[in-house]
Parts: sequence; structure tokens; C-alpha cells
Amino acid sequence: MRDRLLAAEKVKAIDWRDGALHLLDQRALPSRESWVACSTVEEVAAAIRSMVVRGAPAIGISAAYGLVLAARERIAEGGDWQAAWEEDYALLATASNLFWALKRMRDRLDRVKKHADPMAVLEAEAIAIHESDREANLTMAQLGVELIRKHQGNAQAILTHGNAGALATGGFGTALGVIRAAFLEGMVEQVYVNETRPWLQGSRLTAWELAGDGIPVTVNADSAGAHILKTKGVTWVIVGADCIAANGDVISKIGTYQLAVCAMHHGVRFMVVAPSSTLDLMMAAGDDVELEERDAGELLEVAGQRFAADVSAFNPVFDVTPADLIDVIVTEKGIVERPDTAKLAKLMCRKRLH
Amino acid sequence: MRDRLLAAEKVKAIDWRDGALHLLDQRALPSRESWVACSTVEEVAAAIRSMVVRGAPAIGISAAYGLVLAARERIAEGGDWQAAWEEDYALLATASNLFWALKRMRDRLDRVKKHADPMAVLEAEAIAIHESDREANLTMAQLGVELIRKHQGNAQAILTHGNAGALATGGFGTALGVIRAAFLEGMVEQVYVNETRPWLQGSRLTAWELAGDGIPVTVNADSAGAHILKTKGVTWVIVGADCIAANGDVISKIGTYQLAVCAMHHGVRFMVVAPSSTLDLMMAAGDDVELEERDAGELLEVAGQRFAADVSAFNPVFDVTPADLIDVIVTEKGIVERPDTAKLAKLMCRKRLH
Repeated sequence: MRDRLLAAEKVKAIDWRDGALHLLDQRALPSRESWVACSTVEEVAAAIRSMVVRGAPAIGISAAYGLVLAARERIAEGGDWQAAWEEDYALLATASNLFWALKRMRDRLDRVKKHADPMAVLEAEAIAIHESDREANLTMAQLGVELIRKHQGNAQAILTHGNAGALATGGFGTALGVIRAAFLEGMVEQVYVNETRPWLQGSRLTAWELAGDGIPVTVNADSAGAHILKTKGVTWVIVGADCIAANGDVISKIGTYQLAVCAMHHGVRFMVVAPSSTLDLMMAAGDDVELEERDAGELLEVAGQRFAADVSAFNPVFDVTPADLIDVIVTEKGIVERPDTAKLAKLMCRKRLH
Repeated sequence: MRDRLLAAEKVKAIDWRDGALHLLDQRALPSRESWVACSTVEEVAAAIRSMVVRGAPAIGISAAYGLVLAARERIAEGGDWQAAWEEDYALLATASNLFWALKRMRDRLDRVKKHADPMAVLEAEAIAIHESDREANLTMAQLGVELIRKHQGNAQAILTHGNAGALATGGFGTALGVIRAAFLEGMVEQVYVNETRPWLQGSRLTAWELAGDGIPVTVNADSAGAHILKTKGVTWVIVGADCIAANGDVISKIGTYQLAVCAMHHGVRFMVVAPSSTLDLMMAAGDDVELEERDAGELLEVAGQRFAADVSAFNPVFDVTPADLIDVIVTEKGIVERPDTAKLAKLMCRKRLH
């Protein structure tokens, strides 16, 4: 199955070539496929902040490449380049609010032997991070498909939210990776996609990815989720995650929590697909985190045109889905049904499955 | 309290004057306050179809005035005007998918004595329908406020969906009537409004109405509803209804059902406010109805600009909230807690409360 999955990889959001990071501009999709080239760490940070690139895995990979670009600049400047490089590290940490890829890069640098070429080491590590995310996607897709098969067999209708696809990762997606693989196995009849206001990750990005693969996909308003769960024979809700706490609480795109509540109400299974890099064992529970809010304008204006009345808006980016609403978390290290702290701690001690 | 409520009436969506029906064009709000004048029944039907006027009570009132305009035309044509008038009746029934106001007009005409002036009778009846809806709003507002007071007292945060306000009725609103009255009583600290995709009744209309009354209002994405119920101290979800079945199932704006599921999950009370004209005792249960779907373009395009990928969309206008998710239905005839068929049948036998 791995080969068939690899052959089905079409969309690539991140491309490292000719010493620069090339990012598919996700703000312009699906109407325009344009690329943004980043040759400096500042350009990478700006691309993350402005959502040229998005999705926790894709942001982590981009930040890793950002540190390669930073090293090139700092080494060229001469002197104590590592001290200056730490400033770039902080810049990327602030822009991305993600640490796993950055930490992995710094750990690698700390282990560099004297006289080794730090540029070569860092570039190899960033590429390894990118490649391991791609591999993780493939593994998760297979694990997810096994789960679906175990529970129901063919003719699934699936509901997803946001974009946890190729555009959000280094491979062909987490939630969408499972959906793609299930489709290849003939197990998917229809995918419903919440449009995912305000940024429309669902109707712009997920719909574009799935349609590109010939998967039957229908967009709906976010508020139609419960109605669809009730009337359309949906068997699984499958989503990605931006962060998973030690107890299994999932921080993900705003609306994920609402969908999990509705899935529970309808007895529809709820699957979270995310690489183990998403798990933060230092975060005891999801509610310990302050959730990012974005500009009210995203809600009140569309395409630069003001639609809403002259009022304020509450525009949280994420919400917290408590572990007890989640049937299963799928990672590349294995699956965890009815997640809790003990099960997740045990998972994290494992090596990769495949 | 009635006088203070009346003094607070500001927005008027329907104006019958100089023998024409003037409708505030709700497609252009809040950026432009323009009026559409209808002098013929065809113009009224077109205004209903194109959503110049919306909301079940407001549509019913407009249809009643439409029958007055129809009578004027048909009588001028001479001959068997009532037969021709029945065609106009059918036109309005198709455009509005609402029958209570139309039936009331026909019943009145059936009771007209020979030699009476049918135009005068029909105009008086349409005005009476309009006026009784306005009175119903006032009564429901007072009943709703009593309920809120009984349960909690001051400092309420309230969440609403769609627009069940002055723009949707002949008075100052059903759900928003209760919210306005509660605010006048010093019982409302914050109103959260789901933006209500795809037509944005929440961010365009409800936010505009409430801000105009100086009520603290914040718009949010529809997908943030559950997160707000969990984190913002919301004590009531208050919504309107397009139709209520004999068993208490409520047909209302898509997303109402999802909100009711989430309110139940969070132990937040769920109030439906609708005039008794909304109740259809001939409809046993909500799921007996085929729900209207609107054009996919509403979801896939914004302001004429295509945002979504090249896929299909599922765009239901309404959903069904089962009675067992509803704490209380407020009508002008009284309130029904934990609604069921017996309680609602009993309610409908009552006269008006005030």
C-alpha cells in the first residue's frame, strides 16, 4: 500500500532547492498557484506569520529550513555566529509558536563535532525533518485505514474540518492522508468538508486537494455539521491537530471542539491524526494554554470589503477538544484509543512503527 | 415595561403606506439602508424570493400585504376577480412557503358580507396581522425576561444565531425582542452572535440591530459556538424559529440544531422564541418536512468572487432541532417548558396572554 500512497502524492507545499525555501502561497489558493521564495530567515518568519505556509507540521518544517538560512547568513557575517543564530531561533519560535522542529535543529547543532561543517549538518537535519514527516504521513494513513476497515468496511461518508492535508504537512497529509488512503482502498463514498471560517481552509484548501485526487467532496457551512452527522450517514469525523497535551486534549482549528461534541451526540467516531511531534508531554492538559486570537477583520471583512455591522469580533484560532470526546489518536508511532495520560506516555516511548 | 419596550422600537423592516408595501432591503444591510417599494403582488413575491425581506413573521406579513395589492389589481381587471386572486395566492404561497398569514387573509375574505368593500376588509386584515405580530413580540419579550430572571438574575452572557429581530418580524423581534428587553432590565452583559454563514444574518443584521440599541455585541465564527459556551459564561442560547411542529421540534436557520446539541452538552439553557403562528399542528414532527436547499454559490462565492475550489456544495437553509434539546418555547400565548405534543396542543387552545 505504501507504494500506491506514494504514487498518489501530488500536492507539495514546501520545496527546498537551490539553497532557498520555496513555499506554495496558500493565501492565493485555489484561484492561483504561486510560489514564495525565501532566501533569508526573516522571509521565512514573515511567510509563517502571514500564512503563506500553515499547518503545524508544515510550519515546523519551514522553521527548520529557516534555521538553515539563518546559519548561512550568520556564518557569512563571521564572529560568534551561534549567538546571533539564537536570535534567529527566537524569531522563528515567536512567528511559529512551535518548538519541536527548532529544538531538533538546535540539538543537532549541539552535537556537531568541532571542524564539522555546520551548514551541511543543519541542512541535512532539516531535510531529515521534512522526510520523516512525509514518512509519518504514510504510516498514519495506513493505521487510519486499518481503523476504518476494522469498524465498518466500505461506503464511508467522512466529515472533516480545516485543512490537515498535503498543504499542512511535508507529505500528503494527516487527516487527509487517512482519507486519501481510505479512498484508494475503495472505502470512501463522500467527504463533507466544513468551509472553516474565517480563513476558509476547508472550501479553499481541503476541497482543492481532494478534488485534485478525484475524491467526491462537498463543501458545507460550518453550522451544518450536526445536520450532516444526523442525516448523511457519516461514520467518521477525521481531523488534524496543532498540539496534543499529555492527557490527550487536542488543540486544533476553531470548530474542532464543536464537531467533537456533535460527533459524540450522534455516536459518530472521532479520529485525530497527527505526528508524534504534535504531542507535548510538558503540557498537562489543553486548558493550560492561552489560545491565539487573530484580527477581527478576518471575520468582519471579506476580500477587503466590510460585510459586518460596526461591532467587535471574537476570533479565536484554536479550541480545545477534551480527550474524552476523542475515540482515537493516530500517530506514526501507533494509535491510541480513548486517549489518556498513561497511554500517551507509553506511546511516546515507542519507536516508529514502520 | 410594555411602554419602555415600545419606546425602544427603532428598526422597522416593513412599512405599508400610500397603498404600497415598502421593504427595507436586507441584502444591502448594514452598509446601505435602502427601501424597495412593491406596488404589485409580483413585486412582493420577487422581494420574498430574493430575500429583500426575510424571517418567517416578516415574510408572512409581507405576503398578507401582497394579497391586498393582488385584490386591487384583480378588482380593477373586473370579472370574477376572486378566481384570479387565487392565482396570486398560489404565487405567494410558493414564494414564501408560509401559509398562516395567507390563510388568515382568505378566511377573512370568505367572511366578507355581500356589498362590503373587499379591498377595505383585506387591507384592514393585513394591518391587523402586522399589528398583532408587533404585539406578540412585546408579549414574548416580557415572558422571556421573566424566564431569565427566574433562573439567574443579572449579568447574562447570551448567544444567538441568525436574525430573529426587528428585521425578521413586524415588531422588535422574537429572540432579539427577549434580548432587548433583558438588556433594558439591566440583565445582559454581553451578546455573542454567530455570524451565520452563508448569508451572514448574524454579523450583518443581528449585530447591526443590537449595536444600534447600544447592546454590547460581539460577532464570532459559527464554529466558535461550543468554545464560547464553554469559556464565556453563557447562560442562555436564544433563537427564533421558522416553523414549530406539533411535538415541539423546531425548524430554524441551519446551525440552530448544532447549537442546541452544544448547549445541552454544556448545560446552557436553550430558548426558542416564536409567535404561535409559527406552530403547525398539522406537522407531527420536524423530520416530516423536506428542508429547502439554496444555491451552492452562496457558499462558494463571496461578493461575486469565487473563493472555494471547484467542487459542489451542500447548502441547506434550515435544520431540525428536536424538542428534547429545547428547554423552553416562548410564544405570545405563553411559555412551554420541555415542549411536547400535549403541552403545545393545550397552549394553542389558549387566548393571547396580554
